[in-house]
Amino acid sequence: MRTRPLKVALLGCGVVGSEVARIMTTHADDLAARIGAPVELAGVAVRRPGKVREGIDPALVTTDATALVKRGDIDVVVEVIGGIEPARTLITAAFEHGASVVSANKALLAQDGAALHAAAEENGKDLYYEAAVAGAIPLIRPLRESLAGDKVNRVLGIVNGTTNFILDKMDSTGAGYQEALDEATALGYAEADPTADVEGFDAAAKAAILAGIAFHTRVRLDDVYREGMTEVTAADFASAKEMGCTIKLLAICERAADGASVTARVHPAMIPLSHPLASVRGAYNAVFVESDAAGQLMFYGPGAGGSPTASAVLGDLVAVCRNRLSGATGPGESAYAALPVSPMGDVVTRYHISLDVADKPGVLAQVATVFAEHGVSIDTVRQQGKDGEASLVVVTHRASDAALNGTVEALRSLDTVRGVASIMRVEGE
Amino acid sequence: MRTRPLKVALLGCGVVGSEVARIMTTHADDLAARIGAPVELAGVAVRRPGKVREGIDPALVTTDATALVKRGDIDVVVEVIGGIEPARTLITAAFEHGASVVSANKALLAQDGAALHAAAEENGKDLYYEAAVAGAIPLIRPLRESLAGDKVNRVLGIVNGTTNFILDKMDSTGAGYQEALDEATALGYAEADPTADVEGFDAAAKAAILAGIAFHTRVRLDDVYREGMTEVTAADFASAKEMGCTIKLLAICERAADGASVTARVHPAMIPLSHPLASVRGAYNAVFVESDAAGQLMFYGPGAGGSPTASAVLGDLVAVCRNRLSGATGPGESAYAALPVSPMGDVVTRYHISLDVADKPGVLAQVATVFAEHGVSIDTVRQQGKDGEASLVVVTHRASDAALNGTVEALRSLDTVRGVASIMRVEGE
Repeated sequence: MRTRPLKVALLGCGVVGSEVARIMTTHADDLAARIGAPVELAGVAVRRPGKVREGIDPALVTTDATALVKRGDIDVVVEVIGGIEPARTLITAAFEHGASVVSANKALLAQDGAALHAAAEENGKDLYYEAAVAGAIPLIRPLRESLAGDKVNRVLGIVNGTTNFILDKMDSTGAGYQEALDEATALGYAEADPTADVEGFDAAAKAAILAGIAFHTRVRLDDVYREGMTEVTAADFASAKEMGCTIKLLAICERAADGASVTARVHPAMIPLSHPLASVRGAYNAVFVESDAAGQLMFYGPGAGGSPTASAVLGDLVAVCRNRLSGATGPGESAYAALPVSPMGDVVTRYHISLDVADKPGVLAQVATVFAEHGVSIDTVRQQGKDGEASLVVVTHRASDAALNGTVEALRSLDTVRGVASIMRVEGE
Repeated sequence: MRTRPLKVALLGCGVVGSEVARIMTTHADDLAARIGAPVELAGVAVRRPGKVREGIDPALVTTDATALVKRGDIDVVVEVIGGIEPARTLITAAFEHGASVVSANKALLAQDGAALHAAAEENGKDLYYEAAVAGAIPLIRPLRESLAGDKVNRVLGIVNGTTNFILDKMDSTGAGYQEALDEATALGYAEADPTADVEGFDAAAKAAILAGIAFHTRVRLDDVYREGMTEVTAADFASAKEMGCTIKLLAICERAADGASVTARVHPAMIPLSHPLASVRGAYNAVFVESDAAGQLMFYGPGAGGSPTASAVLGDLVAVCRNRLSGATGPGESAYAALPVSPMGDVVTRYHISLDVADKPGVLAQVATVFAEHGVSIDTVRQQGKDGEASLVVVTHRASDAALNGTVEALRSLDTVRGVASIMRVEGE
């Protein structure tokens, strides 16, 4: 074994960073044996220098992250600050000053992955980010390496633990969205400002990263259709139950049937209770991957939290350190397929639509005609009358999002349709 | 991209080999883009040269596998023959003649993994074998690389599709073992001689490989306790149901509570219906991994079959080819921890025991005394009388296998105990 240690600079020492530092210390011998050389924590960049950080030598702590990454003797920079800046500038500087980078930064990777990969490649360095998607669950490495000889057609998953906790709570207790969110906040599963989670921004960033790797195509955050789950109601869960379904916030990356384009989207959807994703409870994550040769694979585990995320970061750290020692780099960006990313209108799926209609003869025929005119085929219709009003629940066969939107617009203009109570996609069948 | 192709020799052209060859041809452009150089099928060693092999140039086919691996211009040997010899000799020769190796051979890896790894290292070559365990499911790579910075404490899984198909059938239809086996054979899930599957040899080989990687310790096939599932009865399933459990053939690799030793075992066991492994249907495989930092991860997918296994082989092929191009090798054997492998007697778990006893006063007291004398604590007892005889079902708290065996031996010598109808371990709680 080499005795000169590899030097690691840690950017950020919050929930994840402190756990990375702790494991680097307590498991130093194991890491050294697995890497083939000791690793040394050479510096820790923080915002608040005064805070006591158990197990971390105060002499290593600095507020000058820029100086740390530019020191020139750093082998690996571990970035667990999050957000776009200063992370982006620091990572780029790290490459330029000879370091490889391990990052857990989904927002940055989704927005600037291509530029960061280019900077890594230009400098002959590694950029690894297993922790950016689904916490501890090995997902980036299996997609990038294990399935490198296969053709991935679909990635379908629950990649946000906060929203899964909320939806699971609504499903199991009948609670409304706000009540379930309040509980998630009280238990620390939701942040004070839950926007990034509940509006699907976090999941959309992960979908962009997963689609890019799965399809060997650059998928930008803007390419991902995004719909949050704040408008999911207890009534939606009741409708889902009637269909033998539950509701999950899904990230879905698909290759079109003709193979010539891809789509990526995040939205709440009904999935059958028999689907393995339906039974993913609490803040857990799970991702289905469908490919030509392997068939259906599922990866399941804790999608967030200090320790699980640190596990993913340290796995990458070991890989990057091994690469340093052998003088090689791991697989970089693979975007050779360069498939076009189609807009949401091209996505084909099934829909569950609840309409409030007048309870009089001919309404069903009117509604059915509108569906037919837009080429949307109906699978089932269920009508329930109440005090001169009626509700009509329509479940369609597979149709494009554009055709469905046209249908809904036309339905809204019918005199006999009082309102469209809800529209939800049905997935996983 | 490099234009000179990497040369691949394929040993074996059965269900897996022919699928590997097919994908190498049909997806040649994708593989080239992902590797950074084209790959060329340079030779295919088979036993029966006359057979027509669609899509394979007859000029590439040879019966002289030894000459093929010794050609000197082969970059990667893909071994999908299976069995110990001639696979072992051929793989060793491949390393000596400059090739890296991708293998799907669980039996060989479990028996001679250490020697093969040593041969690879000596010659500066790679030995990859994702396909040897759980077919297409990425498991070796996540354990070896993604969790390289974590401490794995337990690997618990269904790693044999044939036996899972049989047990699932028994569970869902009430069929007996023979009837379910016959159906598995008719559907092609079981081989004409099912011994390797139903007696747990196949699962034991996989357990040895998984334990070795998970614990950074050499675990030989002989170190794995093995019990088949041919004696599981419909009555056992009925007992399991009463406990809210089902029965699965599990491979279990565990680190002892004090961390100083490990165990590996394969046997049928009851697991609660609420455990994710309980709902693994048909011939699917699923493996739970528990580690210090990541917590509980699960990997699920098709555990066998030509296409899924080929997917795993090709993923390894891409990785090994990339390594060739960069002049590096991937992680080799990691056995630095060298923990002792404890015998089965040291394994601690819970037990479900059915006794046929005389239906008279004092029997329960006698039986309970025997358990107490052996230090096995009873969780629940259920007694059912029938015509002067009674059956007694005892579920224990956690106890060592040695203590349980001592208890059962003593019970057998009691006059009032007519017989021990079944003993089954209870896992996953």
